[in-house]
Amino acid sequence: MPSIRMQCASILFVASLVLTAPADAQTLAITGATIIDGTGRAPVSDGVIVIEGGRITSVGRAPGVKIPGAAKKIDARGKYVIPGLMDANVHLSLSHNLNVETLIRFEDRFDEIVVESAQVALKNGLTTVFDTWGQMPATMKARDRINAGQAQGSRIYLAGNVIGSDGLFAGHFLIKSSTENVSKGTQERIDARYAQGVGSRLQLMTPDQVRAAVREYIGKGVDFLKYQGDIGATIFFSPRVQKAIIDEGHRANMAVQAHITSAEEMHVAIEAGIDIITHGEMPIPPNIWPPELIREMVEKNVAVSVLPFTQRRLDAMEKYSTGPTPSGTDLVAFYKSGKVNRRNMIKAGVRMLLSTDAYLNNPDILPEPVALQADVVDPDRKIGEAHFNAVVALEEEGMDRMEILKVATSNIAKAYRVDANLGTLEAGKIADMVILDANPLESARNYRKISAVIKDGKVVDRDPLPLAPLITAKK
Amino acid sequence: MPSIRMQCASILFVASLVLTAPADAQTLAITGATIIDGTGRAPVSDGVIVIEGGRITSVGRAPGVKIPGAAKKIDARGKYVIPGLMDANVHLSLSHNLNVETLIRFEDRFDEIVVESAQVALKNGLTTVFDTWGQMPATMKARDRINAGQAQGSRIYLAGNVIGSDGLFAGHFLIKSSTENVSKGTQERIDARYAQGVGSRLQLMTPDQVRAAVREYIGKGVDFLKYQGDIGATIFFSPRVQKAIIDEGHRANMAVQAHITSAEEMHVAIEAGIDIITHGEMPIPPNIWPPELIREMVEKNVAVSVLPFTQRRLDAMEKYSTGPTPSGTDLVAFYKSGKVNRRNMIKAGVRMLLSTDAYLNNPDILPEPVALQADVVDPDRKIGEAHFNAVVALEEEGMDRMEILKVATSNIAKAYRVDANLGTLEAGKIADMVILDANPLESARNYRKISAVIKDGKVVDRDPLPLAPLITAKK
Amino acid sequence: MPSIRMQCASILFVASLVLTAPADAQTLAITGATIIDGTGRAPVSDGVIVIEGGRITSVGRAPGVKIPGAAKKIDARGKYVIPGLMDANVHLSLSHNLNVETLIRFEDRFDEIVVESAQVALKNGLTTVFDTWGQMPATMKARDRINAGQAQGSRIYLAGNVIGSDGLFAGHFLIKSSTENVSKGTQERIDARYAQGVGSRLQLMTPDQVRAAVREYIGKGVDFLKYQGDIGATIFFSPRVQKAIIDEGHRANMAVQAHITSAEEMHVAIEAGIDIITHGEMPIPPNIWPPELIREMVEKNVAVSVLPFTQRRLDAMEKYSTGPTPSGTDLVAFYKSGKVNRRNMIKAGVRMLLSTDAYLNNPDILPEPVALQADVVDPDRKIGEAHFNAVVALEEEGMDRMEILKVATSNIAKAYRVDANLGTLEAGKIADMVILDANPLESARNYRKISAVIKDGKVVDRDPLPLAPLITAKK
Amino acid sequence: MPSIRMQCASILFVASLVLTAPADAQTLAITGATIIDGTGRAPVSDGVIVIEGGRITSVGRAPGVKIPGAAKKIDARGKYVIPGLMDANVHLSLSHNLNVETLIRFEDRFDEIVVESAQVALKNGLTTVFDTWGQMPATMKARDRINAGQAQGSRIYLAGNVIGSDGLFAGHFLIKSSTENVSKGTQERIDARYAQGVGSRLQLMTPDQVRAAVREYIGKGVDFLKYQGDIGATIFFSPRVQKAIIDEGHRANMAVQAHITSAEEMHVAIEAGIDIITHGEMPIPPNIWPPELIREMVEKNVAVSVLPFTQRRLDAMEKYSTGPTPSGTDLVAFYKSGKVNRRNMIKAGVRMLLSTDAYLNNPDILPEPVALQADVVDPDRKIGEAHFNAVVALEEEGMDRMEILKVATSNIAKAYRVDANLGTLEAGKIADMVILDANPLESARNYRKISAVIKDGKVVDRDPLPLAPLITAKK
Repeated sequence: MPSIRMQCASILFVASLVLTAPADAQTLAITGATIIDGTGRAPVSDGVIVIEGGRITSVGRAPGVKIPGAAKKIDARGKYVIPGLMDANVHLSLSHNLNVETLIRFEDRFDEIVVESAQVALKNGLTTVFDTWGQMPATMKARDRINAGQAQGSRIYLAGNVIGSDGLFAGHFLIKSSTENVSKGTQERIDARYAQGVGSRLQLMTPDQVRAAVREYIGKGVDFLKYQGDIGATIFFSPRVQKAIIDEGHRANMAVQAHITSAEEMHVAIEAGIDIITHGEMPIPPNIWPPELIREMVEKNVAVSVLPFTQRRLDAMEKYSTGPTPSGTDLVAFYKSGKVNRRNMIKAGVRMLLSTDAYLNNPDILPEPVALQADVVDPDRKIGEAHFNAVVALEEEGMDRMEILKVATSNIAKAYRVDANLGTLEAGKIADMVILDANPLESARNYRKISAVIKDGKVVDRDPLPLAPLITAKK
Repeated sequence: MPSIRMQCASILFVASLVLTAPADAQTLAITGATIIDGTGRAPVSDGVIVIEGGRITSVGRAPGVKIPGAAKKIDARGKYVIPGLMDANVHLSLSHNLNVETLIRFEDRFDEIVVESAQVALKNGLTTVFDTWGQMPATMKARDRINAGQAQGSRIYLAGNVIGSDGLFAGHFLIKSSTENVSKGTQERIDARYAQGVGSRLQLMTPDQVRAAVREYIGKGVDFLKYQGDIGATIFFSPRVQKAIIDEGHRANMAVQAHITSAEEMHVAIEAGIDIITHGEMPIPPNIWPPELIREMVEKNVAVSVLPFTQRRLDAMEKYSTGPTPSGTDLVAFYKSGKVNRRNMIKAGVRMLLSTDAYLNNPDILPEPVALQADVVDPDRKIGEAHFNAVVALEEEGMDRMEILKVATSNIAKAYRVDANLGTLEAGKIADMVILDANPLESARNYRKISAVIKDGKVVDRDPLPLAPLITAKK
Repeated sequence: MPSIRMQCASILFVASLVLTAPADAQTLAITGATIIDGTGRAPVSDGVIVIEGGRITSVGRAPGVKIPGAAKKIDARGKYVIPGLMDANVHLSLSHNLNVETLIRFEDRFDEIVVESAQVALKNGLTTVFDTWGQMPATMKARDRINAGQAQGSRIYLAGNVIGSDGLFAGHFLIKSSTENVSKGTQERIDARYAQGVGSRLQLMTPDQVRAAVREYIGKGVDFLKYQGDIGATIFFSPRVQKAIIDEGHRANMAVQAHITSAEEMHVAIEAGIDIITHGEMPIPPNIWPPELIREMVEKNVAVSVLPFTQRRLDAMEKYSTGPTPSGTDLVAFYKSGKVNRRNMIKAGVRMLLSTDAYLNNPDILPEPVALQADVVDPDRKIGEAHFNAVVALEEEGMDRMEILKVATSNIAKAYRVDANLGTLEAGKIADMVILDANPLESARNYRKISAVIKDGKVVDRDPLPLAPLITAKK
Repeated sequence: MPSIRMQCASILFVASLVLTAPADAQTLAITGATIIDGTGRAPVSDGVIVIEGGRITSVGRAPGVKIPGAAKKIDARGKYVIPGLMDANVHLSLSHNLNVETLIRFEDRFDEIVVESAQVALKNGLTTVFDTWGQMPATMKARDRINAGQAQGSRIYLAGNVIGSDGLFAGHFLIKSSTENVSKGTQERIDARYAQGVGSRLQLMTPDQVRAAVREYIGKGVDFLKYQGDIGATIFFSPRVQKAIIDEGHRANMAVQAHITSAEEMHVAIEAGIDIITHGEMPIPPNIWPPELIREMVEKNVAVSVLPFTQRRLDAMEKYSTGPTPSGTDLVAFYKSGKVNRRNMIKAGVRMLLSTDAYLNNPDILPEPVALQADVVDPDRKIGEAHFNAVVALEEEGMDRMEILKVATSNIAKAYRVDANLGTLEAGKIADMVILDANPLESARNYRKISAVIKDGKVVDRDPLPLAPLITAKK
């Protein structure tokens, strides 16, 4: 926790920025800070970043950078500027929170939930998030409104459906199993918002048929592709069908990722040319990756999004565990394996992307003991909170602190093919950045000490976010 | 079915009434009809009924009744006038239709559902209904709006909660068992609308404590009392507690009824002084009433509301039966016993009240085969339809047709202690009546042949009812 | 725990008895002990008990009692002799242990399970137990074999079925709900062993029909009657039917008890003339008895069998509680209410009978955390162990120690109408007694310190019991 | 049905054989019959088959075959001799009949159940069956006893476990889902009999580790290998792991088959080198095979075991269907797709093996309507009956009758690599054959008209089979 004095300093600092910030065309100059630009290059002290028209126009050490006369100056002495944080895997339209009550009550307002999620994320330094599964139309609407400046929030890139996955009801995705209370009509209406024509029927198609379906799906306006790699340790699509999906993504210049939780399927997907393996260290059933697999990840330079959680959380899970889930999953063994795999992958130099699988947490809906603990002990799937714990986990698992910054910024931008505009503090890039009160290269805990968040060259007024909460509203 | 010609005649007949009907203070004279006044007296042919200020001011054979000059005359030659029909047991705020989806989607609009139900009832000749369980606040609001002339619909009397019964979730009342998907907060909020402080905790109270709770409950504005007599064949309240509840109802000049499904509990409730036994012929588990019990009903002159259903429906149930329900109930045996009991009770002269337990039927929510059949084969719990089948069932079970009319009108008014104003076509009574195109004393099927419905002295414009459907809206 | 030295002394003491014990016609004289005879009279030090032909022939202070020459003398100086202990409520053919696997595997060997239970009981000082529900034929067979000297074990009196209760499958008695895996034929075959013609169908009968069914049931050879008083707080049989059952029991000179868990039903049963209320302090749902009810128990001098458990157990339950059961029962609140009720009843002077509801505990079948705890923390339903904790619980709840002894002996004999032969150490009574190493009037914990058990005038060889274990066999 | 006269003739015919059959070393000559030898060659009328030492020593048209003097002659004029029938896929130790009750009651007697199944099969002309999943030890014991002449029954070849599959409880294989009533110890004990060290843990292994596990498994004495190809449409083992399993089987000169139900997985398994696809026309979810897949089957000459069922059965299923199963499977659509696929595969010339998935049917355990119908309408999974319906189905689906015979004999022998000894009526082969009263090349219904079954050169006494029924015993 920052000291009270530091907190107050930050508040005043931002308040002044917000109050004096002119309209869209604002020119800004951040001065006096240590700049850690996300490329892996050494930090630059007494740095200057000039922002014009929402982009970085120059960045460097103080005397060498020319500050335009019209620039509003932000005095950031003693502070640290890093690229805007990213999360490679979130679910803005909820995920483990999904239940019948929420779905029906908010059926026509899920775009507001997405905006709410994106605002909680932005408030906590995430300027860009990658939504890897959810209600496509609602998430797209929120994305477009944010991009058009009609709503605040993190910049959103979205996969829409996980190709191969059916909707909530048909796919048995709800946290509680019973859907008997929901009429068939409502089930189908809601499911259609998820499946978007690329549900499990694709398993029954020939490679050419799958190719056509994916092409049509891409046309709906998603930003990248994700497909179902496996279910537990069974392989969802045959190798040649996986190749067909990946081809189609690449043809549209999109990154393609797959949900995978088993070692053999990772091998299959890597052979098929996958760009990103989602939560590529978390095995179902619990399992330790064989060294061959980790070597293959490194050799093929595949990006692996990971879900780091702290030892403190793992200890709490073990302590409060009541044994395997009704369906037989031993969650503690699952998490333990994940931690071992991550350590081994870090040591071997696997290219990682920070991710959290996070969503808004509604305690009224998920009141289980463990979930309650989640508010106390390092939540790993709570949006706005999980990424702070994830960087601490990577640190405790032995990752170099400069690498951690890349894992949370430029690695993600590259893997998702958006690095022309995002991910580092370099001239020409969109001006997304976070100003910290303490040095993230000294402790990963310092990512929490946010002084200001700048997105699109504008200082974010963080305090009132989220502006119109539905899920996190105080009851 | 009436012939096309008859139907057209009726349509024109009503159209003319509606078009020419003046405002509230209207004086009406119905002439030329055969009047069957609901007292059991012989029909009066060429009858005249004069209505002023919403009440019947005189009634009798043509030349002997003076018609005020200002009266709007309704020429009802060839038709039959009977008192407005009543249903002693309905559930306007739904019942077997209740599920999580409906509850959440319409949480704040149940008063509209009650009005919708009341309008469907009124359209089909039911000018007064007795709601024996449901959401008290919503039903009360609808009752008051109808009574104030702010909404159309049957006149409503309501019990609110069944004393001893918890809300939907706590009491496991929903058609599907799982309530896991509903947050605790929502469950409690909805349950409170039902339980109203007289839930199952009363079982743990002393007679004096129960008395106090019931007194407080009466103060909320309900019209009569109903308590839980038994659950299956187990007795819900001890004899002395039953006496306490009945005493409190009588002290407030209310009729008191009990939900009872077992013979021994009927004996206990009769001894305790009950006024009305709800569905007093339907046994859980299936059972034939011993002759002693039927003798006791007659001797104590207790009113028994019954749920008559036709042999045709019973045959369909048997044909489509898939065996006992998951909880082991053999519905066919249950219905068969009910029919035998009713026949025996009719033969012995038990005082009956026509009832249906009916509610609005939403096929999207109850799409089971049997429910679908309900639309085809004599529904017995569908509001607006069930009472027409019930009178036919009584006829086929051997009840005298004049008695059937009383069972559907004056018997109910007396048992519920509202016979000073309702139940017969006598001077001084509120002008609620139904004009039929065919003689109900010739066939119980003629109750369907409604030519006009008059409530509070005004002709009801039946065609557009229900005016703003929620549950029965076309999808 | 007794000291090692004391234990050794006891072992040698018994060993000598067993080795030298002559055949059936043995005459015994116990000398030197303090005799506490179970009548409530003051203890007699330096007492002598003479046993001939299995009965006590004289008892008194040393010099005043003549010891026959042929008598085998037992030198019990420093020890305490009390009547054989009794348990007013056990389930020798298992109860909460019942599951499909056990039922099928041991279908034809339940009499052996009953003998095993009776041997575990006898080993721990219970010379007589009252089996209040179970497999009637198996329990009867075991009873008869023990009475005929063909098997060792506690003396058994049995109720057979709880009148009104169906078998395991029909009555949903199994610890796990699913019975789908069992064929209909097997279900019916096993159920018939329980229901014995007095199942729930009796609820549908008239009082006269119930009377006839109970009379027929008595003819099967049961020793006392028990009927279903309530289920939760609903009343199972109407007052007049309860009277009919009680009348039939009394006509056969049997004690009649009822399973009751609610205050109002206790009032109803007491009015109907019940002899014994089973677990008459344990309320479902949790509830504190009103003072009126406790007064009524005292005034009518009804016997109440109670299930005392220690505060230590209650604390453990609360600590390990995971909330209400799936069916909504809050077990901790239930146990807490029970303890409060018991304290209030002790203070008011209600006539109590010690009972445990105990059965053999198979950890392979009931491996739940709480059950495991039961082995550690004062089990209250484990046969051979539960009664030792029960007397300690009564002591901590304020019961006088002399009263505790009566509650565990003579009170039970009287309530079950077997006091002509059992329950006290008086001349003419059957020679059932327990010799303790320490004074039970000093601490209820001393009941555990058994030096010897004598049943029917013979010293029991306790060590090898149970002789041929099925349920408690080491795996 | 054969005429009464024909039946009597057959009975006498066999009776005479059985009565006069000498001991093991018997030499037999079947004369006068039409011989259809299973190779596809034209039938030979007035044929002679000479059997010595359990093997066929010569076969041909009458005058050309020398009959040893010592030969017992069987006059088979007017009859038809075919090779002993085979079933490529049975479950002798039960399958869809499996439930907790059976497992516990017969835990130590499953070898008797296997023998019972093999006797029912043999009685109906199946001289060899391939058991593709079951209790390995029990099935092996039965196999060895039959091979040693200690028990009668079909010749058994067994796979033991399906590699990748866990036991009944862990693998959720039981017909009813709940296993809560079974103690952990019993579950593990029974599961171990199935899994045999090659359960689902193999999914987590590297190819080399799988190879080692399979090698060890082969050492236990199974006759061929079967692995889990897919679950629904998800692929169970990666292509390279499938190759490893197939390699190990081939190294031990075993046929390798896989359970497969999806088109893409068939492609994967064929590429991996599979010998036999199990029920290769039955798609989960329902699906029509793309023409590419069928072409691939033909080109790679893979053997496909099929489960043919008649249109009559399909019609009955559709008529009695109550919709999808609780888990969402639409069985009617599944069966319909299977029939279409089979027709298409027959037309394309896919090499097929007749199979049934059959097991003993216990009506006490599977009393569902559909199961009952199975006794009336062409059962497709009832051992001893299903294969008769399967050949009729193939005929109605357009398969040439000579091909049908090969599908039921020599095709199976070749695919399972046992054609050196079995599958045709050629000199040197083991003397397994069926004598029919009518020509199977005229109607597939004629396979039912069995006159005699000869196995290992001996005429089978079919009437008393099964000799000691457990599952099919009359209750």
